[in-house]
Amino acid sequence: MKIYKAHILFTKEKDHFEVLENGYILVDKGVVVDVCQSLPEQYKSVEVVDFGDKLLIPAMNDMHVHAPQYRNQGIAMDLELLPWLDNYTFPEESKYKDVSYAKRMYSRFVGDLWRVGTMRTVAFATLHRESTRLLMQLFQKAGMGAMVGKVDMNRNSPDTLTETVEDAVAANEALIAEFNQPDALVRPIITPRFVPSCTPQMLRACGELARKYNLPVQSHLSENRGEIAWVKELEPESKHYGDAYNRYGLFGQTPTIMAHCVWTEGDELEMMKQNGVMVAHCPTSNFNLSSGMAPIRTFLNEGIKVGLGSDISGGHELSIFKMMVYAIQVSKMQYCADKSKPFLTLPEAFWIATKSAGSFFGKVGSFEKGYEFDALVIDDHELNHDHYSLLHRLERFIYIGDDRQIAHRFCRGKEITIPQI
Amino acid sequence: MKIYKAHILFTKEKDHFEVLENGYILVDKGVVVDVCQSLPEQYKSVEVVDFGDKLLIPAMNDMHVHAPQYRNQGIAMDLELLPWLDNYTFPEESKYKDVSYAKRMYSRFVGDLWRVGTMRTVAFATLHRESTRLLMQLFQKAGMGAMVGKVDMNRNSPDTLTETVEDAVAANEALIAEFNQPDALVRPIITPRFVPSCTPQMLRACGELARKYNLPVQSHLSENRGEIAWVKELEPESKHYGDAYNRYGLFGQTPTIMAHCVWTEGDELEMMKQNGVMVAHCPTSNFNLSSGMAPIRTFLNEGIKVGLGSDISGGHELSIFKMMVYAIQVSKMQYCADKSKPFLTLPEAFWIATKSAGSFFGKVGSFEKGYEFDALVIDDHELNHDHYSLLHRLERFIYIGDDRQIAHRFCRGKEITIPQI
Repeated sequence: MKIYKAHILFTKEKDHFEVLENGYILVDKGVVVDVCQSLPEQYKSVEVVDFGDKLLIPAMNDMHVHAPQYRNQGIAMDLELLPWLDNYTFPEESKYKDVSYAKRMYSRFVGDLWRVGTMRTVAFATLHRESTRLLMQLFQKAGMGAMVGKVDMNRNSPDTLTETVEDAVAANEALIAEFNQPDALVRPIITPRFVPSCTPQMLRACGELARKYNLPVQSHLSENRGEIAWVKELEPESKHYGDAYNRYGLFGQTPTIMAHCVWTEGDELEMMKQNGVMVAHCPTSNFNLSSGMAPIRTFLNEGIKVGLGSDISGGHELSIFKMMVYAIQVSKMQYCADKSKPFLTLPEAFWIATKSAGSFFGKVGSFEKGYEFDALVIDDHELNHDHYSLLHRLERFIYIGDDRQIAHRFCRGKEITIPQI
Repeated sequence: MKIYKAHILFTKEKDHFEVLENGYILVDKGVVVDVCQSLPEQYKSVEVVDFGDKLLIPAMNDMHVHAPQYRNQGIAMDLELLPWLDNYTFPEESKYKDVSYAKRMYSRFVGDLWRVGTMRTVAFATLHRESTRLLMQLFQKAGMGAMVGKVDMNRNSPDTLTETVEDAVAANEALIAEFNQPDALVRPIITPRFVPSCTPQMLRACGELARKYNLPVQSHLSENRGEIAWVKELEPESKHYGDAYNRYGLFGQTPTIMAHCVWTEGDELEMMKQNGVMVAHCPTSNFNLSSGMAPIRTFLNEGIKVGLGSDISGGHELSIFKMMVYAIQVSKMQYCADKSKPFLTLPEAFWIATKSAGSFFGKVGSFEKGYEFDALVIDDHELNHDHYSLLHRLERFIYIGDDRQIAHRFCRGKEITIPQI
């Protein structure tokens, strides 16, 4: 049993913060036992770790990120999607055939996720089995949670990033055999890149793997209008882009997360809702790649699950705190155009990034009883130069803070120090 | 004479960077004498300050910021404009009647501008003469350039922020007498808050002060649609919001900068162009306050002068580097909606923030011969973990860097160390 004392803030419900000034959180075997304003009598003999005037909040979850694009973070932003893919993304991903290159880059990548307070990550790797295995080992070694996808792709891609369906299935099964343990912090996720990169045979094989091993699925959906038109050509029998995944058992048949959904509406939106598919909203990437602004308020209104993704390197910003700011800003531009769509409030954005996103990993993202203790301790004294309320302190940290204020990081109850990887 | 060696990057023209790998810049009496790839023979005996592998770029200019809203940076973002003004902005500005409060806050504010690499600032203060004077002294002491406006307002404002026209004129004249020196780094700027806050008498008095002392002017223009409708009611004889300034000699009769211009078009746009009025584009603020997205590409196409403003605390982000990113993203959303409006490229955004904005201060914002040497030395080794070109290094710093990478700061040729204020 561990007891931590601090100013505790989290979002049990999406419309407001729970705030415990000088509160206590009791953690046993990595799980929250209680969160309370005063310490129950029976625990008075347990030592309390007192974080003083610091804030204690749930850790961040990054629901969509391309680990092998880490080197390209913050470059080539003047290019449009196709030259960006051909000249930067694909050549870079091809380098991950070389495990030593992967080790150098992935080590920094995992270290940087740690730095910005992201304790759970849903990541695309590349199609390379050994590099993907290495990335999973790095997350394991760090003690950080991750679902990592060996990427499957076999059409409309450079030769260096194409394989046969048989090779893809074999590589997936090898990784599944090694990593698919119940309750493991690091797990495989079935990852067809997106419909244009995968033949029907590949999509079918991915769906079968997901069903056979009861594994989650991730891919991209309705990111931009050119892509949607292309999918219509490639999969003429599908009613919409989402249906092209659904036909192959890749749209909620097992837990599924789809990145972007900028242009999702009508039947596709309805199918996401019915099938319980989660959106990884990536507002920075959607700006940078001129994709558009996803209907985040509509997702919330419709009860569609949502989390936030950095989408490095379409997105340039790794911090999920900054993704909250961007998500709010996107919603404000939509509110500006249509006053019937209220903009996201800070508790809503925080809830999306923590409890809503965290549900993809189980009971993660809140401090309610039974939740895994994924937490950050924020030392904001440098930002807190005048009297600010606890809610304003949190808001300031989210808007203007950075990794310098993150003093401690916990994943599943364990303090994670600088990854020794 | 000083000679600096580094990788030098700047934008003489808006469509590309000048790049001098291991180049030299020669500075005499605060002004650039030459920038060159190899050192001319006659200077071989002058000692060279060698910045090694670091980048040397023009310093940032913040063209619109409310200094007394510094305490509110990053809070109250869930409010709409009117409750935000009534509950946060006006009560905070009222505190600046107390010079000791002003000293505490303004000292941190100027220190933070220094921290993020902003060497020239066009700032709103409050209507209080003594606090405004103090802010100007703090900039002087730091050695940083600023145009600081004692704010004039006498209607639709709380009693604590209202004065008579006579008092406003007297306070302005006192500050002008003290600070209006030719070539001074810190100068007064005539600052009617905006039309709704100023009676015709106040606007007329402001225009007369500007003309009498040949002083620049700043205000707000066409930030949101409600405001525009209100101005139409208040100034029914004006053809448009801009004309309501123009009628009083506050729209380009002396150098003028107008913040926002989100909804500027048609005749107003034409008048700005004819009168040479500069736009302070504040994309982050325009997002946060649900104002909209300013037509930045149109401004460039029309040859309207533009600079970037943080607009603290409508904007939450003080760094003008991050304002470049936001300006590009705004332009990308407009490109997404209308493919005939190409998005801003990085050199364009950089040129706007440096040479274009800097023109408001004289020859500032470039490293061409005759420009004042306002510069930053960027030590990006922590971001430069793989082989990156100089242009990619600059792009990465702008997108993902922060003040930790700013190793040296120069204003008008003098190195500015942590302000001793």
